[in-house]
Amino acid sequence: MKPPSAFIRFTQSLQSLPGIGKKSAERIAFHILTKPGVGEKILHSLERIISEIKFCSNCGNITIENLCHICASTERDRTIICVVEKPMDVFAIERSNSFKGLYHVLGDLLSPLDNVGPENINIASLVTRIKTEGIKEVIIATNPTTEGEATALYIEENLKNSGVRITRIARGIPFGTDIDFADDLTLTRALEDRKDFKG
Amino acid sequence: MKPPSAFIRFTQSLQSLPGIGKKSAERIAFHILTKPGVGEKILHSLERIISEIKFCSNCGNITIENLCHICASTERDRTIICVVEKPMDVFAIERSNSFKGLYHVLGDLLSPLDNVGPENINIASLVTRIKTEGIKEVIIATNPTTEGEATALYIEENLKNSGVRITRIARGIPFGTDIDFADDLTLTRALEDRKDFKG
Repeated sequence: MKPPSAFIRFTQSLQSLPGIGKKSAERIAFHILTKPGVGEKILHSLERIISEIKFCSNCGNITIENLCHICASTERDRTIICVVEKPMDVFAIERSNSFKGLYHVLGDLLSPLDNVGPENINIASLVTRIKTEGIKEVIIATNPTTEGEATALYIEENLKNSGVRITRIARGIPFGTDIDFADDLTLTRALEDRKDFKG
Repeated sequence: MKPPSAFIRFTQSLQSLPGIGKKSAERIAFHILTKPGVGEKILHSLERIISEIKFCSNCGNITIENLCHICASTERDRTIICVVEKPMDVFAIERSNSFKGLYHVLGDLLSPLDNVGPENINIASLVTRIKTEGIKEVIIATNPTTEGEATALYIEENLKNSGVRITRIARGIPFGTDIDFADDLTLTRALEDRKDFKG
């Protein structure tokens, strides 16, 4: 005897999600069947996210309007764009309260091994924005990983003749960690990018 | 700025599932938003699993009828019950084609640390079945873990005066592994439970 088809279909559809394999899909399905209300709660919130959330036509961030709150705001500095990989990066930077410019969400990072080329991420729209929106500075805030660095280099290459200032977020020792635990590359960067002590 | 509420609600509901934390919930939500059709497929299969799947009123396995196919079958040996933790264990044993009796699904294992006591798993219904269904043997096939052994012991304690034969699935070296890699407890069991060589 095999599990009912409704059970098999559900576990198969879960396995199309990142980080979920056969065993965890079965565990999740069994959890939903045994805990009353859990499945219904996910069902309703999934319906809402599918029907309500779209991508900002200007910056690529998630939004419920055509333009996201940041692009539509009159209180932001419209001469500076911070380029990030994904919407969650926007919300992380917003939480820090340290940036008042605009954003541009790439959607992914260049990764030839995963077949992600420049045409698969929002780079063309970034170049258009630089040309048309009167931008003075582009901060590239992709992750300091191989893919993040490659994407940053590619963007720099594409924008270097545009006349705008191109910057990269600082790499260094994060607050609260022990220098002893930092990896070699981070330590090298932290030393290279050292700044004059302001008393 | 914060993410739209539909996004927050969905990631929160995902976090009620086993093995899914904040970061993986956000990754899944972003995956669903960017890959067309993925969300709809999960939505439809989730609706089906919620509306169609129930638990067999006799053995506790998942089913689409009141009685599961195995309990309703006339071709099974109705004098022997195999007790397992969860429905997936039933389907694993069925795949092996080595058991033709009935099953009883506990739903969980005894675990005082997780507040799972005898009243939270299907033990009372097992005792009733033993008394009323003319069962001759109960095979306890819970996992060889602390919780599985404790549950097996508890069931044995509850059934030992019922007159039925109570057995436990064999523990030993699994096929295809190297004895060198087996843990001490498994090796001890495999030696203790050795069988006469049949030529």
